[in-house]
Amino acid sequence: MTPQELAMLSKRHRAPGPRGASRAPAARRGTPRFIYTFGAGKADGQARMKELLGGKGANLAEMTNLGVPVPPGLTITTAVCRTFYDLGRKWPQGLEAELSQKMRWLEAVAGKGFGDPVNPLLVSVRSGAAQSMPGMMDTILNLGLTDATVKGLIAKTDNPRFAYDAYRRFIQMYSDVVLEIPRKRFEDELMMARARAKAATDAELSAGALQALVERFTRLVREQKGVEFPQDPMEQLRGAVNAVFNSWNNERAIIYRRLNNISGAGGTAVNVQAMVFGNMGDTSSTGVCFTRDPSTGQDVFYGEYLVNAQGEDVVAGIRTPKPVAELKKEFPKVYQQLYGIGKRLEKYFKDVQDLEFTVEEGTLYMLQARTGKRTARAAVTIATDFVTEGSISREQALTRINAAQIDQLLHPTIDPKAKPKVIAKGLPASPGAAVGQVTFTAHEAVALSTEKSQRVILVREETSPEDIEGMNAAQGILTARGGMTSHAAVVGRGMGKCCVVGCSEITVREEEHHFTAGGLTVKAGDFITLNGTTGEVILGEVPLVEPSLTGSFRQLLAWADKARRLGVRANADTPKDAKVARDFGAEGIGLCRTEHMFFGDERLPVVREMIMAKDTAARKHALAKLLPFQKQDFKEILAAMESLPVTIRLLDPPLHEFLPTALEDQERVAKQLRVSLRELQDTVNSLHEFNPMLGHRGCRLGLTYPEINEMQAQAIFEATCELVRDGVEAMPEVMIPLVGHPAEFRAAKAVITRVAQETMQRTRTKVEYLVGTMIEVPRAAAAAEEIAREAEFFSFGTNDLTQMTFGFSRDDIGKFLPHYLREHILSDDPFVKLDRDGVGTFMRMAVERGRKARKTIKLGICGEHGGEPSSIEFCHQLGLHYVSCSPYRVPVARLAAAQAALKDKRR
Amino acid sequence: MTPQELAMLSKRHRAPGPRGASRAPAARRGTPRFIYTFGAGKADGQARMKELLGGKGANLAEMTNLGVPVPPGLTITTAVCRTFYDLGRKWPQGLEAELSQKMRWLEAVAGKGFGDPVNPLLVSVRSGAAQSMPGMMDTILNLGLTDATVKGLIAKTDNPRFAYDAYRRFIQMYSDVVLEIPRKRFEDELMMARARAKAATDAELSAGALQALVERFTRLVREQKGVEFPQDPMEQLRGAVNAVFNSWNNERAIIYRRLNNISGAGGTAVNVQAMVFGNMGDTSSTGVCFTRDPSTGQDVFYGEYLVNAQGEDVVAGIRTPKPVAELKKEFPKVYQQLYGIGKRLEKYFKDVQDLEFTVEEGTLYMLQARTGKRTARAAVTIATDFVTEGSISREQALTRINAAQIDQLLHPTIDPKAKPKVIAKGLPASPGAAVGQVTFTAHEAVALSTEKSQRVILVREETSPEDIEGMNAAQGILTARGGMTSHAAVVGRGMGKCCVVGCSEITVREEEHHFTAGGLTVKAGDFITLNGTTGEVILGEVPLVEPSLTGSFRQLLAWADKARRLGVRANADTPKDAKVARDFGAEGIGLCRTEHMFFGDERLPVVREMIMAKDTAARKHALAKLLPFQKQDFKEILAAMESLPVTIRLLDPPLHEFLPTALEDQERVAKQLRVSLRELQDTVNSLHEFNPMLGHRGCRLGLTYPEINEMQAQAIFEATCELVRDGVEAMPEVMIPLVGHPAEFRAAKAVITRVAQETMQRTRTKVEYLVGTMIEVPRAAAAAEEIAREAEFFSFGTNDLTQMTFGFSRDDIGKFLPHYLREHILSDDPFVKLDRDGVGTFMRMAVERGRKARKTIKLGICGEHGGEPSSIEFCHQLGLHYVSCSPYRVPVARLAAAQAALKDKRR
Repeated sequence: MTPQELAMLSKRHRAPGPRGASRAPAARRGTPRFIYTFGAGKADGQARMKELLGGKGANLAEMTNLGVPVPPGLTITTAVCRTFYDLGRKWPQGLEAELSQKMRWLEAVAGKGFGDPVNPLLVSVRSGAAQSMPGMMDTILNLGLTDATVKGLIAKTDNPRFAYDAYRRFIQMYSDVVLEIPRKRFEDELMMARARAKAATDAELSAGALQALVERFTRLVREQKGVEFPQDPMEQLRGAVNAVFNSWNNERAIIYRRLNNISGAGGTAVNVQAMVFGNMGDTSSTGVCFTRDPSTGQDVFYGEYLVNAQGEDVVAGIRTPKPVAELKKEFPKVYQQLYGIGKRLEKYFKDVQDLEFTVEEGTLYMLQARTGKRTARAAVTIATDFVTEGSISREQALTRINAAQIDQLLHPTIDPKAKPKVIAKGLPASPGAAVGQVTFTAHEAVALSTEKSQRVILVREETSPEDIEGMNAAQGILTARGGMTSHAAVVGRGMGKCCVVGCSEITVREEEHHFTAGGLTVKAGDFITLNGTTGEVILGEVPLVEPSLTGSFRQLLAWADKARRLGVRANADTPKDAKVARDFGAEGIGLCRTEHMFFGDERLPVVREMIMAKDTAARKHALAKLLPFQKQDFKEILAAMESLPVTIRLLDPPLHEFLPTALEDQERVAKQLRVSLRELQDTVNSLHEFNPMLGHRGCRLGLTYPEINEMQAQAIFEATCELVRDGVEAMPEVMIPLVGHPAEFRAAKAVITRVAQETMQRTRTKVEYLVGTMIEVPRAAAAAEEIAREAEFFSFGTNDLTQMTFGFSRDDIGKFLPHYLREHILSDDPFVKLDRDGVGTFMRMAVERGRKARKTIKLGICGEHGGEPSSIEFCHQLGLHYVSCSPYRVPVARLAAAQAALKDKRR
Repeated sequence: MTPQELAMLSKRHRAPGPRGASRAPAARRGTPRFIYTFGAGKADGQARMKELLGGKGANLAEMTNLGVPVPPGLTITTAVCRTFYDLGRKWPQGLEAELSQKMRWLEAVAGKGFGDPVNPLLVSVRSGAAQSMPGMMDTILNLGLTDATVKGLIAKTDNPRFAYDAYRRFIQMYSDVVLEIPRKRFEDELMMARARAKAATDAELSAGALQALVERFTRLVREQKGVEFPQDPMEQLRGAVNAVFNSWNNERAIIYRRLNNISGAGGTAVNVQAMVFGNMGDTSSTGVCFTRDPSTGQDVFYGEYLVNAQGEDVVAGIRTPKPVAELKKEFPKVYQQLYGIGKRLEKYFKDVQDLEFTVEEGTLYMLQARTGKRTARAAVTIATDFVTEGSISREQALTRINAAQIDQLLHPTIDPKAKPKVIAKGLPASPGAAVGQVTFTAHEAVALSTEKSQRVILVREETSPEDIEGMNAAQGILTARGGMTSHAAVVGRGMGKCCVVGCSEITVREEEHHFTAGGLTVKAGDFITLNGTTGEVILGEVPLVEPSLTGSFRQLLAWADKARRLGVRANADTPKDAKVARDFGAEGIGLCRTEHMFFGDERLPVVREMIMAKDTAARKHALAKLLPFQKQDFKEILAAMESLPVTIRLLDPPLHEFLPTALEDQERVAKQLRVSLRELQDTVNSLHEFNPMLGHRGCRLGLTYPEINEMQAQAIFEATCELVRDGVEAMPEVMIPLVGHPAEFRAAKAVITRVAQETMQRTRTKVEYLVGTMIEVPRAAAAAEEIAREAEFFSFGTNDLTQMTFGFSRDDIGKFLPHYLREHILSDDPFVKLDRDGVGTFMRMAVERGRKARKTIKLGICGEHGGEPSSIEFCHQLGLHYVSCSPYRVPVARLAAAQAALKDKRR
């Protein structure tokens, strides 16, 4: 090492502050300090030294300083790692000496000897960079075990099986990461050992078998490397430290850093920490606990423990752990200490703590303290309680909740105590859980649920608009095809109905009345359970937990409403949905899809008559029959949303969606419409499109058949005028879909304005209304300035905008999107989380250009993204006026909007 | 009129200059001049006074001043029209007096009297704004005819039938546009007259019948308006002038101005011009002529005439006109005068003139002189001849040719002398003409053309990639479905093969071996002729004219090459196409679609094996068999384009395009691949997509199956290395399709670069190559900066970019695009003419962002727009480096690129 290098290293070391430097021998000699210690109530480092000590090292130091009894240990700094690389993977001079010294300190503090055959000090060695990096080295446990020290461990634990198992695991791990012997060699040996012992699992291997295995492992090391497995603990330690340093630049870690944009000086620290054992007899134990109930949020100390056991025993579930309340009786002092630490940490970190602890011969050690994971329900309770207790502010409470997670509170969930048999996994399209008997047709779903009051799950290859009634009747929907914004997914979410889509692991044989998943066949009538939050398909009936809207939750949302700037509306197509939305706090309807009104039993035949019409007159005749239905729907929705705006989108889907495709349906419908089958099929064929997504739909329909727009406008304005006349404040906003060119908007608007004027004159009523457009075609973003000259509002239809911006058909992405996500080509499904770089660029363009022409233009979003927190944050940044999402997402959106505003404020 | 108004009017009038003012009586009195005169060799106005006199009036003035004998007349200025509106549709004071005076001048010059029953002066009244506006009033002819003057006309022409026909037409027209009596009333009378006379057409009505009709017409006017049809010529004139003024603000005219962005002060002039008659006996005649042959461009005086006839007689084709050479013998003086005028105008306007003339009793009058329309062949010859003659510059010659039109020179065309029987009209997808016998399957097309040497036309509902061999074998292709960029259209243009698509007027019944058009049934084996330039489908064999590449044409293109800045490449997939492209002057290949190589007889089964592969190993096995084919193709193409760049696009279409859809084909293919039918169908089903355009294609294929990219890269680099080793300068540019996200590009490029390195090492050859991407997904424009960090070139795939920018599926637009064009929602088909406002916005974004990251990035376009002149101009403006189009469009692109550069230079 050159003097310059030393000087540089020294500078780096000094930077974080020389706290405790006087105690370090190396520092005393004026050379940089390589190693920081923690233990016996004091630590050289502290939490804010993350860059130097790594996240783990800094945290251990902090805990120690807080007086938490942490097993003592050393942290070799990240600066050493950088020097290691600067020197061509060599240790800086003095490191070896300092490591020996500090290990002697550790022996003293732990009261054990490193390599001592009677009372051996064993250590764990862990990597730990400034930022957590799963790509780096795994933990090596029980380093220090040798043929000699294993004897001491047996004596101390009185458990030879445990000791040999620990030893063989240590050799296995060490050989893999330090000696780089292919893992498979050891696994093969293990397999043979099981075969010899006729054991099905490793757990069935006896102490003797494990001891023999240790011998085979050491022989394997000899054969592979030509050397003995190191029996000198310091040699083991040096090897492990090198392995940690090397792991900083292994391929996984490099990729991880690239993908997560981790740059900077870097390097990893190495944490060497004394092992403690909860299985050293009846005064030893191990356990996990939470400072509050993670499931309900109640302020009760919660957890479980096992006497004379290791952490793995708690997890493995072979012995039944006792509730932590028992600890109070069995070891009152330990309990008091543990409780005190927990509460102290909770206060310090201002959040519920998840603690791992081990009691070694009566001494309590905290192995880990981290923020406790919790259910949504608990999160809400805890956050509001913390506010009440005065430890955090309302704003902190708001930012602490995972907005996406609270969706759970609005849907039934699977009882966490259940042990479900998952038979397949699809995309979690609409959250919640549902139980029911499998059925394969919408027709049957309706029949079984209405006539026989059965709970059914509608299972289909894919759904189409014809299935709507069946979807409505079912408890949940499962499809084998389609993405997160496929028909089933969108409709399911809109209905707040549990839905799993694109489950390619199942093969649906509708005609044979069954589906298969793996080798399993599930027949019509069999019970299944769906978990729409995870995408799991579960065989049989699993108990569900019903949602509850607690007072804390309402409180939290009230705070959110004060904090947010974005309005929150709902996408709702029926008066029922509108009411649900309003109850959930929606401040209007951002998207009312009129076509969903075309599917009722009385209406569909008329819609079909309209489509089959040979000329404008015949089409108008059919449309006139639809008018009263549409008008009544609008009246009810507008009334349900009295004094709040309702954005009504004109007919959008291609007409072929209203015609049947199956031969038997066609025969039935032809008869109904009194046309020949050939005629009906000719119409179906003539409406066929290669790419319906890019076809004859949206405003293109209303422009080619202006009579459709006329009828819809008439329904809207007659409904509005009648309501207003009756004293109901109805506020329609007419939305023209799929506009790409200003001339499209102008032409469609002209019809609407004319009908509005005529209707107001005829009814002698004056009503307020807006006419605007969806921005869902990329071209609309480019033409936004000219469109905004005429349009009074823009609503971003980000589903379609995402489809066209990426060139991804949402119904077909199943073929490559999973691969893209797996390979990190995309970090997120853009149909779930708004793509800020691409789709967002065009949204920003539309906002800027639109405002240029009309400063006060009203801006919203009605795509599915309107209910997703990250996307809502982006909408806030863009300065939109509102987001609109499915009624059941409204609370999520209210919270996410508040979080976005608070984040903005902090900047 | 207030003094202020008069002052304003006066100012406006003085502006254009007071030339000839001294002769105008009104001006003499110090009031503004309302009317300009032309005739007797002198005119008040001139060509540059278009704003005041309108285009027509200014032109008539200019011709008069040039000494061309134009029938004398008056022009009431556009300023008068504006004042007319300022005054609430009233005449300014003094106009009436000035009109009377000028009419007396006209009488004097014409030697006839307005209202004179013996020698009547008849006039035409025409509107004429500064910019030509078809929305305004039609011409009123023979104004001045009354019950009295019609007698004079009879005496002069000795043709009572003509005189009464002229009179009844005058009444009809005048009543329509001036008196605003519904046109239909007169048509009904005419119909009844025909019925009474048992005449099939108006031409069969006798003089007596027409005289009776005049009486009925005047009675009709009396009934409708309660007044007599005006018998005072001055009253007729005042009415006509008002009608012209009013027509400026009729709905058609307003829409026309809005659509064509005509703004400014405006107003229309009114031209009142003496009528002359070529049917006043044997010293009268009428004719049309061109100063050069409009069909060949040869410098010969060309035209035809009829003695004692009216212009309509020439057009009607009842009498056979004589060639203008006869005129030289019959009336040598008139001929000399006409020839002299023609040549003088040609010199003056520096272009071939199309002249209409009438000789009235020995006196020659020029009724119209305009730039002569010509065939593409003539245009080229004339332009180069004019340069040789020194009357225009090379640059002028280049700008004068309609670039789109010269496409004609590269394809057979229908003999202009033929009288084809058009039975249907589709979209003109690929120009030229083709004759052949109808066949409905690709298979039969191949069989008939190769085995029986028959010329065939392939008629299909739509084509698919499976039809390629048949399309290649056919003379032309006709489809009932699809747009200008449907499969048939794109492939047809690529092959330079005549193609009519989207012909919805025909119903194809492939299984019944016929198609119908209107009531007509065309069976397999019947001859039809296609006109790919107009979209016409013609029954029977029509004679064709073969194209010729004249010396003038080559000369012109050589000049174009000097003038242009844009490079011109070709889209070519085969060595044959590559050679054609190079012969046409292509400077490289901008798009070589590798998938077209997958369709050969030997290859398709292997491609299908690859698709059916159950795992990567099996897929690699099949790909290995494809490798030699691909490599050989690339070798030949790269060799054909030696020393020029060849952009090779990796596999793009969705895999399902390679599998058969018809059951019988599936059965055959399943047998061939030795798989069960069910297995094949399962694959077809699993590959099915709802919107294949937005599906699993483009780079998504090569990313999910990297082995496909590997094989293609290997084929490219082995071909290149072998050529380079043999001294052939091969320049591949590897193009990754459908990239939307930088990570897609990075991942695909990594494979290509690796294979390139490996291949170069293995073959010990160093070759130059580029890796770039198509910009065809809107997102790519947004992400262009980051993509350009890795991509060495961008090539705009404007077909797909247009689809996704508009959200238009090119295969489905037939359902609404015709309506959009008809209703002026879109001014052009965006798949034909690049949409500058929308698609162009994203192109500009990509160019700017791409250059930010890589200043020297190579930029081109390979969408169909690359061969369309307006789009080429836009590419020039964007600063692209090259356009790439089908081989047969290369000359068009060379010329259009030159025109764009010249236009740029003039700015």
